[in-house]
Amino acid sequence: MTTFDSRLAGTLSPVLTPFNADGTVCPRRFIEHCERLLEQDVGLALFGTNSESASMTLSEKRKLLEALHAANLPPERMLVGVGACALAEVIELTQAALAGGSSSVLMVPPFYYKGVSDEGLFRSVAQVIETIGDARLRIYLYHIPTVSQVPFSLPLIARLLAAYPGVIAGIKDSSGDLNHALSLLHEFRNARFDVFAGSETHLVEMMRAGCAGVISATANVNGAAIARLCHRWDAVDGQVEQDAANRLRAAFARFAMIPAMKAATAAQLDDPVWTRVRAPLVELPAEQQASLLKELTALGFYTRQELPA
Amino acid sequence: MTTFDSRLAGTLSPVLTPFNADGTVCPRRFIEHCERLLEQDVGLALFGTNSESASMTLSEKRKLLEALHAANLPPERMLVGVGACALAEVIELTQAALAGGSSSVLMVPPFYYKGVSDEGLFRSVAQVIETIGDARLRIYLYHIPTVSQVPFSLPLIARLLAAYPGVIAGIKDSSGDLNHALSLLHEFRNARFDVFAGSETHLVEMMRAGCAGVISATANVNGAAIARLCHRWDAVDGQVEQDAANRLRAAFARFAMIPAMKAATAAQLDDPVWTRVRAPLVELPAEQQASLLKELTALGFYTRQELPA
Repeated sequence: MTTFDSRLAGTLSPVLTPFNADGTVCPRRFIEHCERLLEQDVGLALFGTNSESASMTLSEKRKLLEALHAANLPPERMLVGVGACALAEVIELTQAALAGGSSSVLMVPPFYYKGVSDEGLFRSVAQVIETIGDARLRIYLYHIPTVSQVPFSLPLIARLLAAYPGVIAGIKDSSGDLNHALSLLHEFRNARFDVFAGSETHLVEMMRAGCAGVISATANVNGAAIARLCHRWDAVDGQVEQDAANRLRAAFARFAMIPAMKAATAAQLDDPVWTRVRAPLVELPAEQQASLLKELTALGFYTRQELPA
Repeated sequence: MTTFDSRLAGTLSPVLTPFNADGTVCPRRFIEHCERLLEQDVGLALFGTNSESASMTLSEKRKLLEALHAANLPPERMLVGVGACALAEVIELTQAALAGGSSSVLMVPPFYYKGVSDEGLFRSVAQVIETIGDARLRIYLYHIPTVSQVPFSLPLIARLLAAYPGVIAGIKDSSGDLNHALSLLHEFRNARFDVFAGSETHLVEMMRAGCAGVISATANVNGAAIARLCHRWDAVDGQVEQDAANRLRAAFARFAMIPAMKAATAAQLDDPVWTRVRAPLVELPAEQQASLLKELTALGFYTRQELPA
């Protein structure tokens, strides 16, 4: 779902990346997975944390993005993860996104150096914006301090919004802290600044408070339900659907999330290629896969073999 | 100084990277700085943390490495920082190093994902070694948990040494914890595994305990003294020289280290180009530069203008 001025809204999923036996990316499976997500009304957050984008080269990401655009997937449903430690790489991938018609990008701050100043982070984002120099650009800040260890503070966001209104379009808040999301919504209530929940865990409360939507890893495996919840959070059965989504998420969160979601996808599609991850991640051990699938089945998550005819 | 089988030893410096006004790397100044370090008997740890290598693209690093090799700087005095989040990039830069005759590389583990398993880190290093498939390769592990947040644990090192003896050549211990370095020396006393101090702060004690040398940022600005201390740690005035080196390091550590070392280098060479850093780092404010230079002068660190004729 996109609004009149091409702002993203609703549910997006950081798209899992399938790897062939030789370790290369499989564009066919990636495109098919994107198509399945779109069919469930789930937008495509490409190259996110759960896409293993950190383990992919810039060249791999460019080629995959070009493959998606060439396959005529809707560029306006894409949020392209462009964050990297080297700003020249951020700029190159952002330019590739814009060239394909995807104007929305998700930017994790440069994450190698720790304890950097807000001034340095402001300059990082500013350098990307000034170098790109394209009014279509919409930057969503990616706040995920437990992974990046480098946050987007509220004063930094305020400064970025003041300097680049319209370009600084919103944030994915993966702090995991409901109060932090509420602070963002309150602080920037008078700006055009869209806050996306970083998971569906508190989605009803966050939509009630004014979130624009949710960007959640588990939309890879529970997309339709999360998208419905995001549309109908204020329906009478909103909390019932919230609880159901949370039970499914909890089943995945008992394991390493990325390998667990890939194992579930492999089982659902009866396609073991999907279990593969790149180092430093490790596939789920067989007994954990079995335990996960058993729990998912009990929660009504069907594997392909079990799908009703 | 290199030993008979091309093992590195002695003092190395993570080489600071000079940036032109347009933000590009300046190969001429970089090569000149490398030559100054070599004249002080300081080896070249290229693309380390203090080189701002995280802010440089793979292509920039390849070109700079090729420029150094083309300038006939001794490849056996180079330790090439190859660590990156994407292993394909680690492999490409390692191959470029070997192609130029530099067989020693420094590898920080993939550092985006946090809380990864030793199994995943083992696979990361193993994949690089197996893909390269070159018996000349010497990998030095880069343990810098305060920055990477991803450590090389002792059991992981033991497993790597058992699987790839000779290739796993040593470690730069930037834990900042003397006891950690002593544990490494004790644990691997029967292996051919060279422990380098990550700074000169405890160099006398660490050389006495069996370290192979030191890889320290401040060797950029105090190379000759640190190299002398590393050679003559057991001389009668070893502790006096240690104390002097520590006083100089403390002067830099009062500020952000990389901008401070660049400011001092700019002052020493009377070349303001050296003050530049890449975002997310920020140059030292003028008053901090003045304060640093005043303290350095008091410690006998001459700027170019003040050099005795």
